[in-house]
Amino acid sequence: MKIDAVDFFYLSMPQILDIGDGSQDALLVRVQAGPYVGWGECEAAPLVSIASLICPPSHSACKPVITSVLGQTLDSVADIYRIGNLVRTQSLDLLQADHTLSGIDIALWDLLGKRFEEPVYNLLGTTQTFPKTPYASQLFGDTPHATYEKGLQVRQGGYNAAKFGWGPFGQGSVATDVEHIHAAREGLGPEGLLMVDAGTIWINDVEAAEQRLAALNECKVVWLEEPFVSGALNAYRQLAAKSGSVKLAGGEGCHNYFMAEQFLDYADLGFIQIDAGRIGGISEAHRVAREAQRRGITYVNHTFTSHLALSASLQPYAWIEDAVICEYPVELSSLAQELSKEHLTLDNNGQVRVPERPGLGITPDFAALQKYLVEVEIKVKGKTLYQTPTLAG
Amino acid sequence: MKIDAVDFFYLSMPQILDIGDGSQDALLVRVQAGPYVGWGECEAAPLVSIASLICPPSHSACKPVITSVLGQTLDSVADIYRIGNLVRTQSLDLLQADHTLSGIDIALWDLLGKRFEEPVYNLLGTTQTFPKTPYASQLFGDTPHATYEKGLQVRQGGYNAAKFGWGPFGQGSVATDVEHIHAAREGLGPEGLLMVDAGTIWINDVEAAEQRLAALNECKVVWLEEPFVSGALNAYRQLAAKSGSVKLAGGEGCHNYFMAEQFLDYADLGFIQIDAGRIGGISEAHRVAREAQRRGITYVNHTFTSHLALSASLQPYAWIEDAVICEYPVELSSLAQELSKEHLTLDNNGQVRVPERPGLGITPDFAALQKYLVEVEIKVKGKTLYQTPTLAG
Repeated sequence: MKIDAVDFFYLSMPQILDIGDGSQDALLVRVQAGPYVGWGECEAAPLVSIASLICPPSHSACKPVITSVLGQTLDSVADIYRIGNLVRTQSLDLLQADHTLSGIDIALWDLLGKRFEEPVYNLLGTTQTFPKTPYASQLFGDTPHATYEKGLQVRQGGYNAAKFGWGPFGQGSVATDVEHIHAAREGLGPEGLLMVDAGTIWINDVEAAEQRLAALNECKVVWLEEPFVSGALNAYRQLAAKSGSVKLAGGEGCHNYFMAEQFLDYADLGFIQIDAGRIGGISEAHRVAREAQRRGITYVNHTFTSHLALSASLQPYAWIEDAVICEYPVELSSLAQELSKEHLTLDNNGQVRVPERPGLGITPDFAALQKYLVEVEIKVKGKTLYQTPTLAG
Repeated sequence: MKIDAVDFFYLSMPQILDIGDGSQDALLVRVQAGPYVGWGECEAAPLVSIASLICPPSHSACKPVITSVLGQTLDSVADIYRIGNLVRTQSLDLLQADHTLSGIDIALWDLLGKRFEEPVYNLLGTTQTFPKTPYASQLFGDTPHATYEKGLQVRQGGYNAAKFGWGPFGQGSVATDVEHIHAAREGLGPEGLLMVDAGTIWINDVEAAEQRLAALNECKVVWLEEPFVSGALNAYRQLAAKSGSVKLAGGEGCHNYFMAEQFLDYADLGFIQIDAGRIGGISEAHRVAREAQRRGITYVNHTFTSHLALSASLQPYAWIEDAVICEYPVELSSLAQELSKEHLTLDNNGQVRVPERPGLGITPDFAALQKYLVEVEIKVKGKTLYQTPTLAG
């Protein structure tokens, strides 16, 4: 069958706060082929991805993403890979295209899964899935005491792992950062897995990052995430040589397979973190997971949005028994919380499993989402190229 | 003084042809600070870059580009670098932002140059500039004979160098590609510098690229450009080991400094090609030029649009005497041709020089451009976030 429709829905909280919380808006993607509907989600900047879906072409290698998707045959997994390659070729010079493709690719997997009545991981060739230990992913508190309180809360919530990131970390003195690290460990208790996310704050300044290493080692931090921007591979490698038992983690900024491959090859990472909503979808995330496994680097999802995105992000590495950690956002906005009818809740062991239902196993809650739907209209030469469609199944 | 206004103008030919000609549309950027005006150009996909300039924020690291530019102090070169870093930090998760920043950065240099009555290269610390040998940059013909004719025309046009790219190359059989390469050499004559651009056609397939190496060596081709996509560094390195006297060239897809650094470090390039309209502007292009020179890799501009973009692309490496080659588009659309009042024409030696006038030394031709101006309107929640401004100085 052919792909009949690709629709984007911009959802947003009424007010966007100036904090590192990526769940404040969402770009929901609906793909229709025959009687089937698939859903996906792009990360981030909804208006820009909408523009890249429908913009006028600039030349043969800078076409809108929809050109490579609408009307394409979708009968097999091979078709999904083919469509992804087509987008990358025909939108080579359209930078935003990788983010836009991501949500579409996820929706294509969801659609095929529903059609064949198989979970997506089965279509990916996974025969056995393994549960993941979710780490409670949250922002540092404004003060070390607030960070302590957050750690305590996480422990009381039944989590065995927590990550603290962004907020004041790296913005002030080394001493304050050291206090935050110790406060997080104290709140979480001596047993829990503790991770720290620097949110690229030091760009490529190895020395600045190095000053935090002693405290990170003292507090038995599992990984230091994104000390540097995604491309600063030499800085990663230099820091890794000095980081002791603390491993480096990074990769969420990768927007195609090759960026991730370079990370795997040249950054001396312990963990590679892939956002399926950015790297080109489940297809490319799965490709990275296989290569990471081959190189002995641990794959982890990057997810800071809805449980639709969470399910999509677990599919590519549900088959890796050793990759036990998964990111699990605990401070979701009401929008991200209400986006899906189903949620991936913790079992009695505090673990999360990829849903066994067809596709992604997650249904958008249309009724709940109406109040978050953002009306957008894009006109070029007097012609409406995009207008928010009606949100329904 | 403060930056008072940042305006984007989408220009387009009436019809966009499905060919690899990047001059069919343009995104012109105007920045105003006090009584001064600077002009720049972003490459490519105008509507998407417009959206990234003015979109609602998603979170603290995904803000519209304009947030980091409007109202900023602009009194020195250091301010330009500071603004670039601010955009990269505040729009970290907004993929398109690098392309959008590029045109703004170029306009900031133009503006400061006009204010201080200095050419941009002087502000970059260049004390002596060197002329460049322009290569006539054009598409392969539809048939080997058409390619031959194009080569002949270029030679008759007074060029000492030519590059053929895209079109049918790599799309059909090895034999046809070999014929095109020989036809290009025959048309151009035995003396002219000949380059070939594969336009990423083989993605990362080293074997496919390898099959063309014999003909490229036979025809004394200086470089094979973009056999693979920008990130496929391992494929580049493997091919370079087998390419004989033909050097590899690539890098136009780099949208930040670090991507280029990885190319320099891991791809065994002979030439690194940077598009100032994509990598983040003149600031980042200049940074790459310095690093390339340090590593003994030859810097070349990538420019397939107007002479405003051409001037911007020459500034970062006008100081490198050994980097003699420059890309010079000869099949410009009427839009790109008419975009500027001044043009960088060939001197009696067939060489091009960076203009000695203040700023970029190029003035947009407002009267000529009115007919290419594309009316755009973007409304979010009923509020107009963008509407094409009046194009004037």
